[in-house]
Amino acid sequence: MPVYEAPLRDMRFVIHELLEVDKYQNLPIFSEAPADIIDAVLEEGAKVAQEILFPLNQVGHEEGCTFKDGEVTTPTGFKEAFAEYREGGWVGLAGNAEYGGQGLPVFLGTAMGEMTCSANLAFEMYSGLTTGACAAIDAHGTEEQKSFYLPRMYSGEWTGTMNLTEPHCGTDLGQMRTKAEPQDDGSYSISGTKIFISAGDHDMAENIIHLVLAKIPGGPKGIKGVSLFIVPKVHSDSEGNLGERNGVSAGSIEHKMGINGNATCVLNYDNAKGWLLGREHKGMEAMFVMMNAARLGVGMQGLALSEISYQNAVLYANDRLQGRSLSGVKEPEKAADPIIVHPDVRRMLMTMRSFNEGARAFTAWVAVNLDLSRAEQNEEARQVAEDLVTLVTPVVKAHVTDVGFECANIGQQCLGGHGYIREHGMEQYVRDARIAQLYEGTNGIQALDLVGRKMPAHMGRLLRAFFHPVDNFIQENADNKEMAEFVMPLAKGFARLQQAVAWLGEQGMKDVEQAAAGATDFQRMFGTVALGFMWARMAKVAQAKLAAGTDEVDFYENKLITARFYMARMMPDTSSLLAKVTSGKDTLMALDAAAF
Amino acid sequence: MPVYEAPLRDMRFVIHELLEVDKYQNLPIFSEAPADIIDAVLEEGAKVAQEILFPLNQVGHEEGCTFKDGEVTTPTGFKEAFAEYREGGWVGLAGNAEYGGQGLPVFLGTAMGEMTCSANLAFEMYSGLTTGACAAIDAHGTEEQKSFYLPRMYSGEWTGTMNLTEPHCGTDLGQMRTKAEPQDDGSYSISGTKIFISAGDHDMAENIIHLVLAKIPGGPKGIKGVSLFIVPKVHSDSEGNLGERNGVSAGSIEHKMGINGNATCVLNYDNAKGWLLGREHKGMEAMFVMMNAARLGVGMQGLALSEISYQNAVLYANDRLQGRSLSGVKEPEKAADPIIVHPDVRRMLMTMRSFNEGARAFTAWVAVNLDLSRAEQNEEARQVAEDLVTLVTPVVKAHVTDVGFECANIGQQCLGGHGYIREHGMEQYVRDARIAQLYEGTNGIQALDLVGRKMPAHMGRLLRAFFHPVDNFIQENADNKEMAEFVMPLAKGFARLQQAVAWLGEQGMKDVEQAAAGATDFQRMFGTVALGFMWARMAKVAQAKLAAGTDEVDFYENKLITARFYMARMMPDTSSLLAKVTSGKDTLMALDAAAF
Repeated sequence: MPVYEAPLRDMRFVIHELLEVDKYQNLPIFSEAPADIIDAVLEEGAKVAQEILFPLNQVGHEEGCTFKDGEVTTPTGFKEAFAEYREGGWVGLAGNAEYGGQGLPVFLGTAMGEMTCSANLAFEMYSGLTTGACAAIDAHGTEEQKSFYLPRMYSGEWTGTMNLTEPHCGTDLGQMRTKAEPQDDGSYSISGTKIFISAGDHDMAENIIHLVLAKIPGGPKGIKGVSLFIVPKVHSDSEGNLGERNGVSAGSIEHKMGINGNATCVLNYDNAKGWLLGREHKGMEAMFVMMNAARLGVGMQGLALSEISYQNAVLYANDRLQGRSLSGVKEPEKAADPIIVHPDVRRMLMTMRSFNEGARAFTAWVAVNLDLSRAEQNEEARQVAEDLVTLVTPVVKAHVTDVGFECANIGQQCLGGHGYIREHGMEQYVRDARIAQLYEGTNGIQALDLVGRKMPAHMGRLLRAFFHPVDNFIQENADNKEMAEFVMPLAKGFARLQQAVAWLGEQGMKDVEQAAAGATDFQRMFGTVALGFMWARMAKVAQAKLAAGTDEVDFYENKLITARFYMARMMPDTSSLLAKVTSGKDTLMALDAAAF
Repeated sequence: MPVYEAPLRDMRFVIHELLEVDKYQNLPIFSEAPADIIDAVLEEGAKVAQEILFPLNQVGHEEGCTFKDGEVTTPTGFKEAFAEYREGGWVGLAGNAEYGGQGLPVFLGTAMGEMTCSANLAFEMYSGLTTGACAAIDAHGTEEQKSFYLPRMYSGEWTGTMNLTEPHCGTDLGQMRTKAEPQDDGSYSISGTKIFISAGDHDMAENIIHLVLAKIPGGPKGIKGVSLFIVPKVHSDSEGNLGERNGVSAGSIEHKMGINGNATCVLNYDNAKGWLLGREHKGMEAMFVMMNAARLGVGMQGLALSEISYQNAVLYANDRLQGRSLSGVKEPEKAADPIIVHPDVRRMLMTMRSFNEGARAFTAWVAVNLDLSRAEQNEEARQVAEDLVTLVTPVVKAHVTDVGFECANIGQQCLGGHGYIREHGMEQYVRDARIAQLYEGTNGIQALDLVGRKMPAHMGRLLRAFFHPVDNFIQENADNKEMAEFVMPLAKGFARLQQAVAWLGEQGMKDVEQAAAGATDFQRMFGTVALGFMWARMAKVAQAKLAAGTDEVDFYENKLITARFYMARMMPDTSSLLAKVTSGKDTLMALDAAAF
């Protein structure tokens, strides 16, 4: 049976020791979460993940959701678990306190997200989509909308969804066909078909608030004519007492590769009553505001599945007796040594470990900056935080889910043939992890967003929010001999990243397809350097702790060991990636489309 | 609905134009397959794959096998399809003609294997395992065993299996517990439990011949005391008329990530009657002889699933309208351009294409050498062929399945969210492809075999069988300006490979864990260079054809385009891989096992 134990010590290391969030205690949002509150929330969250969600993970995978007579039934135990989960107040953890949320920082929500996604991704999405819908209502709703919907959604009494995709359009939403006809009472009548709606229907809450992108007839063509609407599954009176069903219904659920416990619905809108959220024709603007948080959340899913795959691979590697250590028998009293003695098994485990801890630090850094982008009182500092988040959000989404998927597979590989068998759980982590590379904008789209939108924005200003701290760190530690083993590989990788930026800027100016051709490899390179930066910073913290004296010597020594591994085995990728980026578009575009 | 069309033109290019098998017409085996026979077999094979096997691929995935009352039922249509398949003589295609096989070369069998695995891997395995069992009987059986079993198995009347793994041992078979007690009549009584037995039970043939590894009590300890036995599912008289069931039965079937249509069985042996195959205590020797062919076959599975994923990704990329080309609208009359206009989609398709064609050439080269290692009359030439096959077999198995799996995923990625939905087929290819990295020796084991066994063997003699032809090719074309764009990147990658070999040799001599720590990255590097070598050779053939004049200008031009892509985008990996290999074992081994 698979195991899961929330990595609380490492989370505390990242939050308190690496990012030192305590220093922001004077700022709003942060002031809600002093150190003891943070630790208590994480500890309670770990219990929920381990004890309530995780035991249902394989059940959800095996049973999946069922669709009968237009109704979705979630797997055995999900409904009861959701009741417990929402009673704990977890849906509204980082929600606006004015409307019943707990008002805690986003970085705490994403840490919780890692744990819930490790424990049960399919389950987490019912809550995660609700959080996302709340964020949109909070940012764009009228006072009336906020005070009506948010308390009911933060409490989990009602859940939420996001409706973007249609059968013929996903990335290119300008082709959208769903229509919203204005009605005399100020509402809209919405008709059309939406697909891939995660948590689109279920039996765990009495109402579902769909946020739906649709076009108001007569508006601007394409993406500029798209508006966002609130469309409840069930009508209610002003007190929230439920009445008749609205004109929206699930047409079917998809049979998917994974996240079987989450109902991915086709939703049919047939003159459903809806209300405008935000401004007419400004639906994409409303979506984009919440996209940073959503993409950060999806990035966490990649980390989460790598983490649980790692934990179970470690368990197996310590338990499975097969062959003998090349450096001499380690456990002579046993029939063989545990496979963790083998260097190639070590390579696999260290790859996962160095990714998990690096990605945890990176995503937390971004999450803290997301909070700072709202809380910072100094406008310059606030802008820098926002710039960083805006710039690296596609990297978090794409890099952490790409490498997270690879690591979920590496964990499976550690189990050999047993990894292929469902009961061990490893194949579920791989299958569940795969979705994160595809939804919320494919990873190719993330790379294009990074190269084509974020980097050129404001004459390259956003880049500085990442390049300055890396550059400063390298400068500050240039003469630190103890840090040289970390700083030198980082500096090498960073120099390559800068070369790639220069090449993309110069070539992309002449021919934007040159930049697009290098986008994915560049994104990978950026992510590799970003995690390398986090590792160098973590090594510095660990060295300081060891120098100051600590009773956790092993913990900090292991940080240094893992940092060394990352520098030796991961950072070198920047060299081949630079060669790929700068090889340009010609070899990609030369073949006639019909010849493929 | 997914499509599949066998890549016949490319197969003919590889067999006739690149490898020029016609020049071996004077040798046995090859003389059975003149050019027109090869083409006819491939064409018939393509029909079988496309028309009989492929239509059952999704059925097999969705239904899987069922196990009830000790009996396995295969998915709807499998039984009838197998009847057609065996009537076509496909099971014994490369079987010994003296015993009813068709006596065709292995390279033709592996080309057929690519097609059948693309079309329906789960189905192919019933036949593939039979072929493997036949090879063992042909190599080690007595005259009586051969003439009794082979005709019935080549015809597919009876199928075969290989029984190695037990619950507590897979890689380390020395721990085996299954026992074979000698009986007075010369047979053995076999008892024990075997797991992960592909095609271990089913309803498609009236008898199954299990080849079972077991220990004869009193024999040498560990792996040196293992013998191989023939154990039929059903007893028969000397004419092959079936009688009572033998003491072997399926205890259950596994629920797996993929290859759902193939029954992976737990087989319980309870005093089953069996007969020794080959010599007492020399079971592993018997297994190893057939392992080259088996691992080559598994390598083909990686290629096969990448190929079908590619074909369906191409179809989607030409069909799906989303966004506009960055270089200007391509199809103004449509709502959007097909996504194949986007450089990042091109990058994905070209990655798959260059891998597929490169791997097809590489595996065919190895397969031809496997035939030469048996057919060559000149002992020196025969030995070189055998050396090459022995050396690169782990590379074929590991590299082609590793990159094949990555490419199956890339194809899925091209479909965005639709790739995650089962009906599109892409997720099946990913799930099916995953097994090939795990079975027939995990890919980590392949890498260790390459670095720890193959490279040091005979003072490094095997390496020459690969290094000489590459070196010769580079020398021969050093002054060829037209070839410079291919030869230079190849030479760079090859030089790095040689550096890695030197490092591994030197360090591994002092500490074998140094070699083991670099094994997987080295194996990847070797595979990357090997495909690069094939691409350079293919480019040379294409240039010659174009220079000589041809009415297939596009075909050869496209070879050159794809070769350029491989050199620009794949060969650079050798630089980062070299850095990883030479970073050594320290960062892998430093962490205490308990600290993971």
